[in-house]
Amino acid sequence: MSVEDPMYYWDYLGLDEVLDSQRLASASDRRAPAHDEMLFIITHQAFELWFKQILWELDAAIDLLGRDPIPDEDIAAVLRHLERIVAIQPLLVEQFSVLSTMTPLDFLDFRDELIPASGFQSVQFRLIENRLGLAPKKRLKIGGAAYTSRLSREHAERLEASESEPTLIGLLDAWLARTPFLRFGRFDFWEAYRDAVQAMIERDRHLIATNPSLDAAVRQQQLDAFETSNEAFTVLFDRDAWEELRAQGKRRLSHEAFLAALLISLYRDQPAFHQPFRVLTALIDLDEGFTAFRNAHAQLVHRTIGGRIGTGGTSGHEYLQAAARKHQVFSDLFDLATFHLPRKELPGLPDDVRTQLTFRYSSPDD
Amino acid sequence: MSVEDPMYYWDYLGLDEVLDSQRLASASDRRAPAHDEMLFIITHQAFELWFKQILWELDAAIDLLGRDPIPDEDIAAVLRHLERIVAIQPLLVEQFSVLSTMTPLDFLDFRDELIPASGFQSVQFRLIENRLGLAPKKRLKIGGAAYTSRLSREHAERLEASESEPTLIGLLDAWLARTPFLRFGRFDFWEAYRDAVQAMIERDRHLIATNPSLDAAVRQQQLDAFETSNEAFTVLFDRDAWEELRAQGKRRLSHEAFLAALLISLYRDQPAFHQPFRVLTALIDLDEGFTAFRNAHAQLVHRTIGGRIGTGGTSGHEYLQAAARKHQVFSDLFDLATFHLPRKELPGLPDDVRTQLTFRYSSPDD
Amino acid sequence: MSVEDPMYYWDYLGLDEVLDSQRLASASDRRAPAHDEMLFIITHQAFELWFKQILWELDAAIDLLGRDPIPDEDIAAVLRHLERIVAIQPLLVEQFSVLSTMTPLDFLDFRDELIPASGFQSVQFRLIENRLGLAPKKRLKIGGAAYTSRLSREHAERLEASESEPTLIGLLDAWLARTPFLRFGRFDFWEAYRDAVQAMIERDRHLIATNPSLDAAVRQQQLDAFETSNEAFTVLFDRDAWEELRAQGKRRLSHEAFLAALLISLYRDQPAFHQPFRVLTALIDLDEGFTAFRNAHAQLVHRTIGGRIGTGGTSGHEYLQAAARKHQVFSDLFDLATFHLPRKELPGLPDDVRTQLTFRYSSPDD
Amino acid sequence: MSVEDPMYYWDYLGLDEVLDSQRLASASDRRAPAHDEMLFIITHQAFELWFKQILWELDAAIDLLGRDPIPDEDIAAVLRHLERIVAIQPLLVEQFSVLSTMTPLDFLDFRDELIPASGFQSVQFRLIENRLGLAPKKRLKIGGAAYTSRLSREHAERLEASESEPTLIGLLDAWLARTPFLRFGRFDFWEAYRDAVQAMIERDRHLIATNPSLDAAVRQQQLDAFETSNEAFTVLFDRDAWEELRAQGKRRLSHEAFLAALLISLYRDQPAFHQPFRVLTALIDLDEGFTAFRNAHAQLVHRTIGGRIGTGGTSGHEYLQAAARKHQVFSDLFDLATFHLPRKELPGLPDDVRTQLTFRYSSPDD
Repeated sequence: MSVEDPMYYWDYLGLDEVLDSQRLASASDRRAPAHDEMLFIITHQAFELWFKQILWELDAAIDLLGRDPIPDEDIAAVLRHLERIVAIQPLLVEQFSVLSTMTPLDFLDFRDELIPASGFQSVQFRLIENRLGLAPKKRLKIGGAAYTSRLSREHAERLEASESEPTLIGLLDAWLARTPFLRFGRFDFWEAYRDAVQAMIERDRHLIATNPSLDAAVRQQQLDAFETSNEAFTVLFDRDAWEELRAQGKRRLSHEAFLAALLISLYRDQPAFHQPFRVLTALIDLDEGFTAFRNAHAQLVHRTIGGRIGTGGTSGHEYLQAAARKHQVFSDLFDLATFHLPRKELPGLPDDVRTQLTFRYSSPDD
Repeated sequence: MSVEDPMYYWDYLGLDEVLDSQRLASASDRRAPAHDEMLFIITHQAFELWFKQILWELDAAIDLLGRDPIPDEDIAAVLRHLERIVAIQPLLVEQFSVLSTMTPLDFLDFRDELIPASGFQSVQFRLIENRLGLAPKKRLKIGGAAYTSRLSREHAERLEASESEPTLIGLLDAWLARTPFLRFGRFDFWEAYRDAVQAMIERDRHLIATNPSLDAAVRQQQLDAFETSNEAFTVLFDRDAWEELRAQGKRRLSHEAFLAALLISLYRDQPAFHQPFRVLTALIDLDEGFTAFRNAHAQLVHRTIGGRIGTGGTSGHEYLQAAARKHQVFSDLFDLATFHLPRKELPGLPDDVRTQLTFRYSSPDD
Repeated sequence: MSVEDPMYYWDYLGLDEVLDSQRLASASDRRAPAHDEMLFIITHQAFELWFKQILWELDAAIDLLGRDPIPDEDIAAVLRHLERIVAIQPLLVEQFSVLSTMTPLDFLDFRDELIPASGFQSVQFRLIENRLGLAPKKRLKIGGAAYTSRLSREHAERLEASESEPTLIGLLDAWLARTPFLRFGRFDFWEAYRDAVQAMIERDRHLIATNPSLDAAVRQQQLDAFETSNEAFTVLFDRDAWEELRAQGKRRLSHEAFLAALLISLYRDQPAFHQPFRVLTALIDLDEGFTAFRNAHAQLVHRTIGGRIGTGGTSGHEYLQAAARKHQVFSDLFDLATFHLPRKELPGLPDDVRTQLTFRYSSPDD
Repeated sequence: MSVEDPMYYWDYLGLDEVLDSQRLASASDRRAPAHDEMLFIITHQAFELWFKQILWELDAAIDLLGRDPIPDEDIAAVLRHLERIVAIQPLLVEQFSVLSTMTPLDFLDFRDELIPASGFQSVQFRLIENRLGLAPKKRLKIGGAAYTSRLSREHAERLEASESEPTLIGLLDAWLARTPFLRFGRFDFWEAYRDAVQAMIERDRHLIATNPSLDAAVRQQQLDAFETSNEAFTVLFDRDAWEELRAQGKRRLSHEAFLAALLISLYRDQPAFHQPFRVLTALIDLDEGFTAFRNAHAQLVHRTIGGRIGTGGTSGHEYLQAAARKHQVFSDLFDLATFHLPRKELPGLPDDVRTQLTFRYSSPDD
């Protein structure tokens, strides 16, 4: 800053541009603007500001996660970036509550002016999805067309380019897969774990089979469902079967990365796993946050335009509701819980393994 | 209160009972209790306390709505009851955030002790659903069994009895259907509205047909979708077709009640409609609140038990996610927006009709 | 919209300007920008966007409240404007939570670049305060200087001009004061109310005097405090004493307006008072919302810069904490509760008075 | 669980007791209960349930922090306990929003029945304050009486006993004070830090002195304020002066503990400081959460009873507002920011010191 030009709040924040950028389409001809169009524009601008911030954090996290090896300081920074996104997400949901004070009639006062513009054209949100690692082929089609079909050429190209850039889930996978802890020298962890799983399954099967509050038919149904759910373990122990599911898009993480994540979540109390466990938790929170955002969006659209076709020509709330389920990127991490065992049944770690997971403050005498 | 026994905070609130009712199942044998079971119990107790409060408000609202005629003071009271429920709902969602600080491993420390108890056994929540008017036949089956199948005989009977008691949607329907405003003397509102709809549809069709950002194939798809969505209007103008949909469970409100609700939402600016419009809005908010609750529950279950069978023997988060969509009771009110017209295209009310919808403060000289 | 230039989401929202307006001061020389400056700028821009929206609603409310008489439709609209501000306020508080993910060290990475810019230079927030009706003489001094002293001439003039423009509290006062309900023909409401107050005071005094859980000294203290608090009633019944307090800045509403507000809040169940009561409630919520905002701001400043002098040269969190209490505009409305009586002790309204407060739907036969 | 008695949701949660414990005082004679008393009771019961949970977490944290040395696993657990309390706090604030749907008139329908019971009699909340370490002498007097004066003998004794039990701040102090990192072998950290501080102060003084947007009088005021704020540094470097302030109750942490906390917050990027830094942050969040709770309580009391004397005989909202500021326990941690330096001015750590703060995964070959 130069002495001639002291920093001034208004200028620093670019408020001339920011506060002058609300151009109400309903005011374009000779009538007074629709009062609620201001809310509509400002809410969407606030969404886009926060999307920019989310991308800023995602890009920083991706940049750090792309290094090899990743120093512990950097994992701490990655965690800060992810947790900040998680802190931002409730704002996004809350903004829909604010927007819902605009009733359908209020929206109709200016809705026709917006056609064919649509929230589906939010380049930044699509970019967030790509950065997270939403696979192009997993995207719900919007009326059969590519998700870039209604964008300007420049924006479509930006998104298409991002499809081949590093993704959060991709780098997470690589980082997990190369963890040194997957192989504990002579201790065969996975064999011990498998035995423990077997014991648990048998105990659970017995609990259902003898549940006195179930009649015979319901019990049989539950037993069938139980056996189906056990198939998950079979796949967990079979790398090829896992990778087959992955090829079908039913899993996103590689077999090795998933095992590493499972190990971290089972032994999160070991000092070496504290931060990695927080990273996994932040990713679950983050996925949940986007799901809550999409669900809130679906409700808002339903109450505002009913069953109508949206300004973007799509069926609105049903698409959004479906996306809330289908566009989750880190559902593998939610599924970790499927493979957890009670602590008391977990194979104990041999001392030499525990030592590897502990850290020792070195002392000047070392 | 007697002088001998001054009111004391602890006793007034029954804290001996409330704070002594956390019996940790994991502590039943000789080991220390699982730390997180306290959170699990207290969170569920807090849910049940709020469910009791919600029922208290629902019962009061139902009692008032069951009168005929309903004085304006009572509609004000109904509104207060509904808006209080809406104020409580974010608490319920937030409580799941608190519960999500319990990780899968922490849950496994006591989960086996709970079998076969399950949140599906929350009698109060089922009662709330029945009071709202969730139709028994619209309930998702839980493993093929009746929703009362796993309850004590007393609880099952209480729920079954409630199925034939007055419901919020039933009384709302009756109240709306008998509104005197549906027939405006000589002014044929619905004919004028129909003409306006016709004009709007033609204009919208033109907008899609000439949307320059769509290529031919996409345009055709959108036009097809648009025509499908117009069928809604055909049904709106055809009482028999409407009641046919209703018989199929696709509509809940009677034709007359829906038209009354539409009228209220279109002319909410008329003084006589202020309060009724707020009632409709509160019901939409309330439905949305329970949807958010079920979605948050689904996410919590997913992250805590993964794809596993829940302690209640059901597949957990998928059931809850489906219920979030299927158990909405007031979706007709969301759909009102489908039939809205821009204010400038709404048929103007003749003066004698407006007078009916305005109120005049009477004066002593009257 | 012309056919050549279909509406495009990005352009409609002015995203070129909005998303290009983050100029990181820390990046101005040859080093990488401080990562968290982006969050700092975007959060403040989001604040300013919402401030603009709040002003948009305030201006609309003020415009409608400035009419005489105000049709019921317009009171409904005023209410919508106020309730929307109340819906926006939790966002503002939440945004401080997001900003608190920036630690003191992160802030120091760019704080020096901002000097002497300061949040105290938010023209829009000062304008909101003026629109609400914060009296210039009630403003806390910032280091002894006028609140406009650090603004550009243009901004200072805009604020100074606003001091003489209509305010929300001023128009509220006028609207309340001219309510026809203050004088109920032959029924002397205030005399009946005064008798009821007298009875309540005597009963309460007895309750304290005989409270068995108090020892003599504490009882005397409470009795003294009780008598002090009763002085409020003396003033309520004495117009001159009231206006004297008002001249001292201890009351904002005129005697007549306060009595009207009291009447509305005591008899809110009367149909004619439903909407006015909601307006009063919305104003209490709105005041509370700004208090929560200032408290959250104070906490944020304390944890981010500690006891240091802020970039604006003020002592930061202590100023903000004090403003949270002193800058409340509608505290008279909070104080209404001081003068409430239990419903069962309220003077009953004579039938001819009730009729005045009820409304009758006129019918074509009238 | 025995086969004869399968776990049942209702029984497990003690719902017979919990849902049967709402005894409406307004229903004690022959009239219908005041509708809103149910909300009043249930909200307070929910508060007390969450207070129990908070105590459960505090006790667990205190138990772990009381060990010496504290293994890293245990610090991770302490952190989980604290962060869970932080997750609970927004619920408490939100519950006041729900309670604020009860208007003053609604409260008066049953308020007299409650006298002399009062929220000041919440034993659990007082216990929480004691567990945190609120010094008895720092407590605001309630009408001149001890905070236990209005409690049953049993409750008063429980609280008095707790005053001499270990507190969170006490154990935090001990843990921080014995950190080995305060003395870095040959590297005199504090001397280097002091030099950096000196440089920063001189630079800041220059910034104010040459701030072109200030006129002479304001500049002088700011310079005076600046010099006052620099006195904080003098005390920081003077153990005796610090302990003198502490004896006066102006500081809570010992000199050594404060320096350790400062070190951790300045070098939080070092792996060994990740968890300790999170602990400090959680404590700031926790203090802020209780402040928000007290502020929300003050607002609720103000709008519900106005300026009246509360049922407990105190002046209500003013007490609560004052307590929000005075009862903060960890304000020393907020003040850490006062002593931060920009990263680029922080003394660099010599390599052998960095090594001490890093951890090395040991390998089987070690």
